[in-house]
Amino acid sequence: MIKVGVVLAGCGVYDGSEIHEAVLTLLAIAKAGAEAVCMAPDMEQMHVINHFSGQTEDGCSRNVLVESARIARGQILDIATVKADDIDALVFPGGYGAAKNLCDFAVQGADCTVNEQVKRLVAEMLAAEKPLAGICIAPAMLAKILGQQQPPATLTIGTDRDTAATLDSMGVKHVACPVDEVVVDKQRKLVTTPAYMLADNIAQVAVGIDKAIKLMLKLR
Amino acid sequence: MIKVGVVLAGCGVYDGSEIHEAVLTLLAIAKAGAEAVCMAPDMEQMHVINHFSGQTEDGCSRNVLVESARIARGQILDIATVKADDIDALVFPGGYGAAKNLCDFAVQGADCTVNEQVKRLVAEMLAAEKPLAGICIAPAMLAKILGQQQPPATLTIGTDRDTAATLDSMGVKHVACPVDEVVVDKQRKLVTTPAYMLADNIAQVAVGIDKAIKLMLKLR
Repeated sequence: MIKVGVVLAGCGVYDGSEIHEAVLTLLAIAKAGAEAVCMAPDMEQMHVINHFSGQTEDGCSRNVLVESARIARGQILDIATVKADDIDALVFPGGYGAAKNLCDFAVQGADCTVNEQVKRLVAEMLAAEKPLAGICIAPAMLAKILGQQQPPATLTIGTDRDTAATLDSMGVKHVACPVDEVVVDKQRKLVTTPAYMLADNIAQVAVGIDKAIKLMLKLR
Repeated sequence: MIKVGVVLAGCGVYDGSEIHEAVLTLLAIAKAGAEAVCMAPDMEQMHVINHFSGQTEDGCSRNVLVESARIARGQILDIATVKADDIDALVFPGGYGAAKNLCDFAVQGADCTVNEQVKRLVAEMLAAEKPLAGICIAPAMLAKILGQQQPPATLTIGTDRDTAATLDSMGVKHVACPVDEVVVDKQRKLVTTPAYMLADNIAQVAVGIDKAIKLMLKLR
């Protein structure tokens, strides 16, 4: 069975993986007849946000791998133990966790640093010519890894001009894209879709993610 | 727009709402052109389970409403503030939270007690002849509320014989049901489906939940 890595970043849109995007990614993978291999870095979250009040919980700490396990129903690996040889494709759902835990784009913008294990696995996937997908804000992290290549990698985070300009400044080419569509970089076998960067509701997110996963698997 | 209440019980299969079931419920509601109204009780969870290790986190405490807000992206109400007049239908996704927080079936079995606000809102929905749906283990809680009616309410938690026998002992009639099907009690306008009580993968869960939400909305 085809194995698709899914990199989670916690559990909740404001400090972890966007839960709808992560679950709809797992659904799209299952519907495509493939098997999801969930993984996350074993590290503390940047912070914990109370999703009811929207406030930061001072003095609180949660582990990215442990919280991601909630989305994965306990079936999850430390990303440090996963190699490109183990999987056929790799997907990054969005949510602030992708920009706070997998990298620090939410704080540092174009000068962000990407988690070492995430960087290593993406580099292995690119070297092995295995496809990648990035959802919502996750392409910002991929822009940091792929920046400065020629010709520039193409990707999308939707239509937000400021974020798009920041991504362009990181050495990629941002392409505006509606919520139910995807941007494909054939050279890097990279598919991106805006999801909740643009979506008004979960049904729109499902359409874009389903399309992204299908196209990513066709690039194998 | 038709409004469908979704009662959450935390965020994670072992101590809260089963995340896939909750998200697929929200997806089915949006695909049906209806609006989800997420709600949860403002109370401490029975306990916190580390979903990576499977162990109880001693000395840890999380609030059901605050954790449920992760699934609802912050758009959630305290169930104490919701009346049957505010919604057209009401759904209970599964996960241990439905049997540990909304009621204590996981500990007390047939002698369980249901949260007062949950009991009140379900009673209001029944009195108003508005439809209900229960997913996975949530029908056990509904069995406690509906038990001892004549003729007995019919519902399903799948095919588990011990759980089915316990439900029968609570005064309802359990009907075995495959993962991609539903059991409908027309008199109570109640639809139930087994989801992860039986499912091998998330795609199967999606089929059963989509069917349950569609049928529930037809009972309006």
